Order: sequence, then structure tokens, then C-alpha cells
Amino acid sequence: MLGSVLNTHQQWLCRELASLGYVVTRQVAVADSGEMIEQAVREALARSDLVITTGGLGPTSDDITRDRIARLLGCPLREDPSIVRHIEDLFGQRHRKMPVTTRVQALVPEGATVLPNAHGTAPGLVLEIAAGRWRVGASLLIMLPGPPRELRPMFTNQVVPLLQARFPQLGDFVCRTFKTTGLGESLVEERIAVSLRGLTTQGLELGYCARVGEVELRCGARGPSARHLVTQAEEIIRTLLPDHLFSVGEDTLEATVVRLLTEQQRSLAVAESCTGGLIAHRLTNVPGASAVFLGGLVTYSNEAKKQFLGVQDGTLRSHGAVSAETVREMAEGARSQMKADYSIAVTGIAGPSGGTPEKPVGTVFIGLASQRPTRVIQSTNRYDRETFKFVTSQQALDMLWRVLLKERT
Amino acid sequence: MLGSVLNTHQQWLCRELASLGYVVTRQVAVADSGEMIEQAVREALARSDLVITTGGLGPTSDDITRDRIARLLGCPLREDPSIVRHIEDLFGQRHRKMPVTTRVQALVPEGATVLPNAHGTAPGLVLEIAAGRWRVGASLLIMLPGPPRELRPMFTNQVVPLLQARFPQLGDFVCRTFKTTGLGESLVEERIAVSLRGLTTQGLELGYCARVGEVELRCGARGPSARHLVTQAEEIIRTLLPDHLFSVGEDTLEATVVRLLTEQQRSLAVAESCTGGLIAHRLTNVPGASAVFLGGLVTYSNEAKKQFLGVQDGTLRSHGAVSAETVREMAEGARSQMKADYSIAVTGIAGPSGGTPEKPVGTVFIGLASQRPTRVIQSTNRYDRETFKFVTSQQALDMLWRVLLKERT
Repeated sequence: MLGSVLNTHQQWLCRELASLGYVVTRQVAVADSGEMIEQAVREALARSDLVITTGGLGPTSDDITRDRIARLLGCPLREDPSIVRHIEDLFGQRHRKMPVTTRVQALVPEGATVLPNAHGTAPGLVLEIAAGRWRVGASLLIMLPGPPRELRPMFTNQVVPLLQARFPQLGDFVCRTFKTTGLGESLVEERIAVSLRGLTTQGLELGYCARVGEVELRCGARGPSARHLVTQAEEIIRTLLPDHLFSVGEDTLEATVVRLLTEQQRSLAVAESCTGGLIAHRLTNVPGASAVFLGGLVTYSNEAKKQFLGVQDGTLRSHGAVSAETVREMAEGARSQMKADYSIAVTGIAGPSGGTPEKPVGTVFIGLASQRPTRVIQSTNRYDRETFKFVTSQQALDMLWRVLLKERT
Repeated sequence: MLGSVLNTHQQWLCRELASLGYVVTRQVAVADSGEMIEQAVREALARSDLVITTGGLGPTSDDITRDRIARLLGCPLREDPSIVRHIEDLFGQRHRKMPVTTRVQALVPEGATVLPNAHGTAPGLVLEIAAGRWRVGASLLIMLPGPPRELRPMFTNQVVPLLQARFPQLGDFVCRTFKTTGLGESLVEERIAVSLRGLTTQGLELGYCARVGEVELRCGARGPSARHLVTQAEEIIRTLLPDHLFSVGEDTLEATVVRLLTEQQRSLAVAESCTGGLIAHRLTNVPGASAVFLGGLVTYSNEAKKQFLGVQDGTLRSHGAVSAETVREMAEGARSQMKADYSIAVTGIAGPSGGTPEKPVGTVFIGLASQRPTRVIQSTNRYDRETFKFVTSQQALDMLWRVLLKERT
């Protein structure tokens, strides 16, 4: 609640649950205060078939979730010797002495099922809450440890089978995501809304999310005809947004680009100035990128632009490092140096400083070299530094995506 | 609630509010359902002096927050002609026709104050909720648009002055963040807890957050002695964790590294294989990095390692691309090619494929070259691909940080 931590649990758990057909109705975050934790859990139990808590099971003094929930439910805590042994073993493997405080993680509320933690010390805990206690029906309460690399495998390997056995009837939601680029949110809706009306009256739900450089559209439906409705929607969307739809599902633009390059057996090199390695980073996040991505040159200095990309000293002098001429030489240099089929290059002024009246902060040139004539586009991306880098990397990937799409058809 | 969107609003707003001395007690996310939005807002108004909603003010059919809140509060909606003109102007500037649906954004609940949107179409809205309606005291309800580049300037320029005028007495919370590397969460607490006990009994609150490669410690306090308590805590923490504390405040490890390089007037080059540009990306996120960061070579292929870094063909053949010998030549090559004072290099197997029995997925070598003898460390980072990249980049930055720290003393 102090803003130091980004809540990635919400996104990850919601996505995993949605892929199983379960829809999360509410997500709540509270401070590490015993009273607020108790209140939030009490309210959630009064509302839901399933409540999942994350975090607060660890060894430090602010880890009070287990304790407070046991108190709320009136379950005494007992030390589980097998958990103590597991924690001792973990510290032994790392040749470290087990701090005394760590032992608190072996406390288990009476009646709870223990989910062993294969990647850390604190186990998960599952409690059945009887019908009539907090609401008419029964609820299941699952406490998971906070660190993502402990939580995620525990959820996938232990919680999912448990949910599927316990709540088979709730998992009837079908959802599909469509990612588009090059159109604003209103225009995406304007293109498709009328044609989808027949389906929305039958229960299809539409959700739009405008992001930097892309608009995401989600189609969801419940019940026996859900899959059919969503599939019909997909046909309509594919027909109406052919030049803008780059992904059906969760694929990113970089994953789409890597897939097209792989299909076409083409290789790629990147030369980055103002994006500082982000394009290479995004591409190499995609498993299998090494088959098509040869390498990237982050040429921040003029020296590096000359040395690694063969940018001419005269070009830098007469046009400057941020210019159409320089980005053209960067793209062509990267392509020829790495013997790549395609190359993309970017140069610009990320800010906050470095702008001039003719080339203000946000000015960007993007070049794309291939066997065809090199193309250069210019843009002005006025954002904070990190958004600037992202938008610019998105434009560069978008430019390449459109070229690859044409090559395919 | 489907997991497609990461909630960055929570982090940003909580951090901004905390820096003003306000503590957020609860954050709630609900689906785009009218009933759930009404319920969540009603509950929040019954609990809080201030309620901020984000999103749902846009032009698409799922943007129902304004409408539902007006209904909940019984305020009729009226079209504000000045907002219509603003939206028409925006579309005119972009040479686009204004879609009809966009006009819904000009609707204002009776009695609301309008916060003009300098970066988009939907304005923010402020409503005073009278004492005795939902709770004993009065509440302030502020609706902000969802896109971060609209929300953030609106909050900073328009909401902050409003809060400071309306809730001066609530802004008495002082909080400081301490970031450490190289120790687990329990060990950080073990080193400092006893020495801080005198302060915690006086009201100092401690929070720990274990992350991949770092542990964050937060000290907070309320009231007139808050600043004094936090400052005393800082002295103790600095004394007890000298080799582990890399930042007091929100600075990242990369920002600390860039600051030390800048202070020492030293330059840096990077050669990355398995981190694929992430180290360069992290470094170039820091404003002013261009003064010390010369460039990065993302040498994914063996060819690129030889061509740009001068790695010997024999080294790659006898030891392989993922080896201490190769990373040493990568680091030394990057340093000499770019004439840098320092260079860091990484090579490893990110996975999911590419592992062998001797070098399983997760194997990493990190090299650091400087005027002193080159150092190489080995690690096994068994994580998913993106976490692997982050952990490895963290280890490389940590290695450089420690060297820079020694140079300073």
C-alpha cells in the first residue's frame, strides 16, 4: 500500500483462473495490519465460494496473515514437525543456519490441509469454511506464499487440481483476447460493434483496454454456447480488422514478429540508440528467439555507431545522431554487419534532457533495412523516459510486423 | 479481472499518496459489472475519507463507472458543452472524425467538479459526499481516467492541491525504503530487528519485501516524532548492513550503479548473450545514463561474439559459448572495443531448451573486466525465462556495484 510493490499476483492468478473458466469477481489489497487483514478476509468469505490470499506467511514480523486468519476463524495453531524438517533441510542445503524466526512458518491452523512448498520455506494452507458460518454456502480459503516463484508452481501443481475437483460447475467461462495496433479504442469499437451486436444480445461480453501503442479487445461468454459465441466473434473480428489484429490470445507483438520470422526463415538484427536494448530484450523474451535473432547493437555513443555500424562521420556531423540519414545507415550497417535478412534501427531523444528546438525531446527516427529499399519513419513520442522507450520499441516492431505480413501474403 | 492487465495504477497512486504522507488503507479491483462497481464504491464510501476510482470513463460500451456512480448517488447526468468542444478539438487536431460514442465522455453528474484532461478525452470528476449519507463523516470521491498518461498528470497537477487543501491533517505519515542485496529476508531481519526494537516500541513500523535478488525494508511512522524515528532507524540500518544496502529511497540497483560511475567518472560497456539486452535496457532507463554507458553488444550468435567482441573461434570450440573462458573474452573484448573503464558480460542458457547434462538450463557465467584482473563468477539460475534474465542481470549489476563501492572507499 506504499507503492513499492507492483501487484503481479493479481494479473497472474486472474489469468490462470480465467484460462480454467473461473472468473475472479474481486481483488483486494490491504496494508500489513492485522485488523484490516481480518476485515478483508471476513468480507471475502461472506461473498465468495473461493478466497485466495497471497503473502504474509513468511518469517518476518510483518508476516501476520496465517496468525490473523487462524484467529478470525478460531482455529488454534500447531507446529507441524514435517514442515520444521523441510525448513531445516533447505537451510542445510544452502549451508546456512536456520534463523529462529523461520520456525513460525511451520505453524498450521487446526483442520488445514498443508500444501508443501517445493521452492521455499512457507507452505500453502487450505481451509474448508462450513456453510452457514459466513454465508449461506460453504467456502474454500486458500493461503499461498507471496514470492512468485513459490506461489506459481504451488498454484499450478497443487491448487488447480483441487479447484477442478471442488468447483467443476463454476468453470464455464470462455474468453478470448484480440490484440490490435494502429487504431484508437473508439475506432476499434466503431469497426466491430454493430457486427457483433447479434452476439452480444446472446450473451457475448466485450471488454476494451487501450494501452500505449495497442488496443486489446476481449470477448467472453458463459454457459454451454460460450465457445460457439466466442468463435463466431473471432471470425467477425478477423474479417473487420485484418491490418490491425496482430494476435489472438496472449501473444505479444514481439512474439508475433518472432513467429513470422521463424515461419519465413528470415533473420533479424537490431541497432538501438534511444531504446537502449529494449527491442533486443523484448525479442529475446520470446522462447526460440535465438533461431531468428542474430544480435543487437546498443550504440549509445557516436563512436559506437561508427565503429560497429559503419555510420559515416560526415553523416553524424551534418545531420546529427538523431536524423533520418543516421538511422538509415544504422539499419543498413546492422543488416550488413550481421548478414541479417532484416534489421531495425532506432535513434531519438528519450529525455528528460537533450532536446533542441528543431528536435525536441521525444523525436524518434526508425529505420528498416531488408533486400528492398530501406524505409525510415519519424515520430514524436512525448512521454516519460520509460514509456518513450516502450512506445518507440512498439513502433519499430509494428513496422517490421507489417512488412513480414505483406511478405507472407 | 481476466489477467490481461497489470494494475500499475495501484502502485503509482499509493506511492504518490505515501510521498504526501497519506496512507492508502485498501485497494479494490472489480470486473466491468455495474453491480460490482456500485457495491465496491458504496463499501469504500462507508469506510473512507477519500475514495479514488480509476478507469471506466472512456467511450466504449464497457466504460460504465461514471454512469453507475451517478446512479448510486442519485445524481442526474448532464452534458457539459465545454467538454464536447474539447473532445471535438482533439479529434480535429488529429484530423479524425469524432466517433459518436465519444460524446458520452462529456456527461457530468450534477454537483461534480470537472478536472479537465490535458492528455485525452475523458475529464476527471470530483464529488463531495455529505456527512451522514454513507458514514458519519463526509467523503470525497474522485473519478480519474484509466490511461496512465492521462491519469498521472491529472493527479499531480489537479488532485494533489485539492487533497492538500482538504485533508491537511491526514498527511502525517513518514516512510523510508531501504533496498538490500545479497541477504535473504530472515537474515536481514536478524541483523537489525533487535537494534530497532527501541524504535518499534515508540511506534516505528517495519515492512519487509523479498524480491528476486533483493530484499526491501520499509520503515514508517506517524505523528510529530515520525521523521525523527525514521531518521534514527536509518542510522542503525546503515551501520548494520553496510555491504548490502544499495539504496535508501526508490533508487534501483541500476540507478545506484549509474550514480557511482558518474561520481567516479568511469565508463561502462556491456556484452550480453542470455540476458538479450536487459542489462543495457535497465541501465538506459536511468536518466543521465548516456554520460557513462557507452553501449551494449547483444551477441546472441557465435558469429556476433567473434565479430564484435573478438571471442576466439578456438575458445568457442573447446569450451562452448556458455563457459568461463568465453565470458572472459566477451568482457575483455567489450571493454577494449569500446574503450570503456569497466565492462560486464554474461552468457548462459535461458531455456526452456538448450540445456545439457553438464550445463543445464539456468547455467550462467558473468564476467567483469576493468584495469584490474578480469573476474568471472558462475551461477545456476533455475527460473522461467523472464525471471532468469532478470536474476542474471541483477547478479551482473551487483558484481559491478561491489567493485565500484570498493573503488570509492
